Amino acid sequence: MMLKKYYQDKIKQIDETLDSVILQQQELPPTIYEAMRYSLFAGGKRLRPILLMAAADAAGARGSDYLHAACGLEMIHTYSLVHDDLPAMDNDDYRRGKLTNHKVYGEGMAILAGDALLTQAFECILSQPGVKPEILVRVAREIAAAAGPAGMIGGQVIDLASEGKILNQETLRYMHQAKTGALFRAALRAGGMLAGASEQQLAALTEYAEQFGLAFQITDDILDVTGTQTEIGKPVGSDERNAKATYVTLYSLDTARELAAQAVDAALAALNRINGETVILRQMVNSLLVRTN
Amino acid sequence: MMLKKYYQDKIKQIDETLDSVILQQQELPPTIYEAMRYSLFAGGKRLRPILLMAAADAAGARGSDYLHAACGLEMIHTYSLVHDDLPAMDNDDYRRGKLTNHKVYGEGMAILAGDALLTQAFECILSQPGVKPEILVRVAREIAAAAGPAGMIGGQVIDLASEGKILNQETLRYMHQAKTGALFRAALRAGGMLAGASEQQLAALTEYAEQFGLAFQITDDILDVTGTQTEIGKPVGSDERNAKATYVTLYSLDTARELAAQAVDAALAALNRINGETVILRQMVNSLLVRTN
Repeated sequence: MMLKKYYQDKIKQIDETLDSVILQQQELPPTIYEAMRYSLFAGGKRLRPILLMAAADAAGARGSDYLHAACGLEMIHTYSLVHDDLPAMDNDDYRRGKLTNHKVYGEGMAILAGDALLTQAFECILSQPGVKPEILVRVAREIAAAAGPAGMIGGQVIDLASEGKILNQETLRYMHQAKTGALFRAALRAGGMLAGASEQQLAALTEYAEQFGLAFQITDDILDVTGTQTEIGKPVGSDERNAKATYVTLYSLDTARELAAQAVDAALAALNRINGETVILRQMVNSLLVRTN
Repeated sequence: MMLKKYYQDKIKQIDETLDSVILQQQELPPTIYEAMRYSLFAGGKRLRPILLMAAADAAGARGSDYLHAACGLEMIHTYSLVHDDLPAMDNDDYRRGKLTNHKVYGEGMAILAGDALLTQAFECILSQPGVKPEILVRVAREIAAAAGPAGMIGGQVIDLASEGKILNQETLRYMHQAKTGALFRAALRAGGMLAGASEQQLAALTEYAEQFGLAFQITDDILDVTGTQTEIGKPVGSDERNAKATYVTLYSLDTARELAAQAVDAALAALNRINGETVILRQMVNSLLVRTN
């Protein structure tokens, strides 16, 4: 109940901020802002910006004071989806039940819309008011490192290179940590840094983030076989048909469920070391075990 | 003569910095750093980082103290070339006489290598040592704005949308200012900001940058019809065959030459207002009138 209200409030703030940041301010160039907004407002769960704000709350600040940094994360996440969907990558026609960016605007424009979201993400983060410049520099560097070739892009490189191959456990874990985990980690750590968290709090947020990312990925793989097409916005069982290595194909559905529960427990344990208001972060990681999308 | 020595020194410093910044630091992910380095070391003229450093010199600081900011600009320029060459954009197989990134590494990897260069560019800029954080934030925001949809990407959007169409003068000028001029402008202004330039010096550097960008574009169009394939690294006259609007197709070769000379004069006049050591900036803009590549 509390989580639902928190989500509603935060999503409203995030949407308003994104709406004000991505605006066509002159006649030229045409279409690019429309293409950027199409994917930004395509029904994303806003998980990364909410994690950033909830981490700042937990560290004793007010999460909604950091909306620009939070929205920068959402823009980076969105650009990665636009590029991942391209024909040269995963070649997906639909995401969350809507046509993908390149199916609507064409491939060239989708590449540029992704580039523009990534570029403006940094402008947005660096426009965050009310934060000491040295902290802002640290936060932006943390996010850039997490989104770069040693993080999110690196994970996508492995995903691209491994299509049709069965990955071993170690590579699968590295891929997910990089592709999805790194940005979750940056979200939690950035929230902590912005809030002036102590080193101990930052370490706890980092551990929470890593376990959250793991639980997120495992439950994502579980959903691919147990969800309905309406719920997950893509055909059920597509991972298996695409010969994608997942926690379910690599282990079993039961083992995957157990691993997810273990990760959630570890995330909750990490929160005990924060000494702050962590009820939202607790509810967020718990909700992964019952997620339907 | 002096310019040649300055170039040699600076290119050596730039190459060393880029070499140290873009490094594979672990076994995974494979290939991406190789793909990034392939285009970074494909014979670029390093014009943007050199402009940044020469601007800092002109404003009374030492340009080579700002190599990380300078190299970030080169990484952004390089990513834009990698993405512009893609089949969904200009579909070029060669650049500077070498196979384009996607012809060597495949389309998916070329998209990711471009994304990675853009992302790491911001990490690199924000790692610039010896600069006050508030100045670094201002510089990084300036560069992000110049590279984004209201700048470089916006120019490429118009280029993409106008293939096979004849642009009017106004749109042509906007396209070039955005696609090429904005990053030159950011280079000169960033160099000035890093050096602690006065508002008057910054205004003069900005005017120089705008005239430099204009002269660069006009002489680029001239080269397309007067250069040799070896010099310009692509077939001669390809703009006309591709029905691209250029200063030569829109005016005439003679008028284009005159417009270029006027822009160079205006750039030189702006430098008189800097009250610093501007000999390199003078030589750089003058050299555009005799460029062969």
